[in-house]
Amino acid sequence: MQTSLLQKMIEQLQCLPGVGPKTAQRMAYHLLQHKRQAGTELANTLATGLAEIGQCKQCRNYTELELCDICTNSRRTQNTLLCIVESVSDLAAVEQSGHFSGRYFVLHGCLSPIDGVGPQELGLSQLEEVLASDGSDPSKPLVEEVILALNPSVEGEATSHYIADICKSNNVAITRIAHGIPVGGELEMVDTSTMSHALMGRKQF
Amino acid sequence: MQTSLLQKMIEQLQCLPGVGPKTAQRMAYHLLQHKRQAGTELANTLATGLAEIGQCKQCRNYTELELCDICTNSRRTQNTLLCIVESVSDLAAVEQSGHFSGRYFVLHGCLSPIDGVGPQELGLSQLEEVLASDGSDPSKPLVEEVILALNPSVEGEATSHYIADICKSNNVAITRIAHGIPVGGELEMVDTSTMSHALMGRKQF
Repeated sequence: MQTSLLQKMIEQLQCLPGVGPKTAQRMAYHLLQHKRQAGTELANTLATGLAEIGQCKQCRNYTELELCDICTNSRRTQNTLLCIVESVSDLAAVEQSGHFSGRYFVLHGCLSPIDGVGPQELGLSQLEEVLASDGSDPSKPLVEEVILALNPSVEGEATSHYIADICKSNNVAITRIAHGIPVGGELEMVDTSTMSHALMGRKQF
Repeated sequence: MQTSLLQKMIEQLQCLPGVGPKTAQRMAYHLLQHKRQAGTELANTLATGLAEIGQCKQCRNYTELELCDICTNSRRTQNTLLCIVESVSDLAAVEQSGHFSGRYFVLHGCLSPIDGVGPQELGLSQLEEVLASDGSDPSKPLVEEVILALNPSVEGEATSHYIADICKSNNVAITRIAHGIPVGGELEMVDTSTMSHALMGRKQF
């Protein structure tokens, strides 16, 4: 029997995280029954988004533009704090706390030689460029303090130490968010008030 | 601030059932980070599927063709059983049991005057046409027995009675699937109405 369009839909919906055959089936029927219009809009946005959303040239945040909203925000470029996060979802978690108005740098991972993730994959040369700025060029704002907001895992610790070395050689102060984050927890799951405490309680690294 | 493509993606993913803001965010980042190719294919399939998948002319199952796979299967058209279900997911559940090789009729709901769902919305005139066939036209196979596989809700009961009347006036036998203790279920966990059904539906051992 030839695969029907419906079967193809159910199969491909399973590329979404946490979606197995049963959920995919429910999603497909739900869209067909109640949400044809919304589903079609979703399809268009997904197609455009996945084709056009790339990384910000400066901070590696997701954006469809050359520089992301945060890097082009003049209030934020005057701020000399730079928060380093592992993922864009961690960036969103810090952002939602409302206690940080500096800029970010997204690693998209952690040093993990066993998985072939080295400084190159984390864009650390790009980070060095950001840190090297003396602030004379307005498109490359000054960074005076780096705040590490990495997960408290082994890889996160290794990455923190690696970045601390880069900061020292560039004469940039380095701090880390306070241990208030439960060890073994995921940054993106933390509630906003814990995240605020973690930001305000940052300590010399 | 203008809505970015990413925000639009996260918002629109929430049209999927059971997907809230957090899950939608996780899905969007997951697709961007790991599944661009698969996500793009999903977008295309969704767009095509939602535009092209309609209802089978005969049984109201979902299909992109005029008649669905089941209605055009010659082994199934020779079978004179017709199973009536409320939704395509119920059809899939019956189908997965592997114990039914007749055809189906999908109501896409239950009689519910308060929600404006009457016989018209359930396609009951279409059902009457299916039942009226005397089997002389090969494209309209004979139906000798209707099996009701509706949910045991108030609306399901009302719908069952309505359909039973149609069957009687067309001289078609009518049965319903057995309600009783689920296989693998604990007797003490069963609700009283299921227990009543199980007792009344007892069979010679």
